[in-house]
Amino acid sequence: MDTDLKYDSNGLISAIIQDDHSGEVLTLFYMNDVAVAKTLETKRVWRYSRQHQQLMQKGDTSGNFLNVRRVLYDCDADALVVRVNPIGPACHTGERSCFYRELP
Amino acid sequence: MDTDLKYDSNGLISAIIQDDHSGEVLTLFYMNDVAVAKTLETKRVWRYSRQHQQLMQKGDTSGNFLNVRRVLYDCDADALVVRVNPIGPACHTGERSCFYRELP
Repeated sequence: MDTDLKYDSNGLISAIIQDDHSGEVLTLFYMNDVAVAKTLETKRVWRYSRQHQQLMQKGDTSGNFLNVRRVLYDCDADALVVRVNPIGPACHTGERSCFYRELP
Repeated sequence: MDTDLKYDSNGLISAIIQDDHSGEVLTLFYMNDVAVAKTLETKRVWRYSRQHQQLMQKGDTSGNFLNVRRVLYDCDADALVVRVNPIGPACHTGERSCFYRELP
């Protein structure tokens, strides 16, 4: 299903997580092929945590799951936009989006 | 100005380019510190092309410049959202966004 996607030398692809309703960009995750497959299969966002070096379902510890509406891919097939309905804040800080600060 | 941003081992940071008006995600670029500085200074999007291994102003060849409205950064300070007013299509294919295809 995702055989045409291009993963980097670490086996990862960038996944931009976007609120399907508001259009707000919530966070940027990395997925391996298993995370992509599980995201499509379960309709919830899975990611590969580079810090923990493991596959994780977003919300498994916080309860703040991201329910998937659509998954788009780009012209190079090396990046995803995952449009979601978030259950609670997407950021570990408690902010709705990780992008809550602005450069001057 | 961008001294708090965290660049990866190649000196790059991910920059999600988003239409400031519609909220549509247009493309995903990579920036080095010079690209970030020039983007903030000129209010137009500059990127580091990994393919061409050089700094480029988006639109220099196509005329499809991306005028910058706001630059947001995330909780880890290792990703940007650049909100823009695009002059023409952002994708080299002629599509408005690079994310014009959907996974099943």
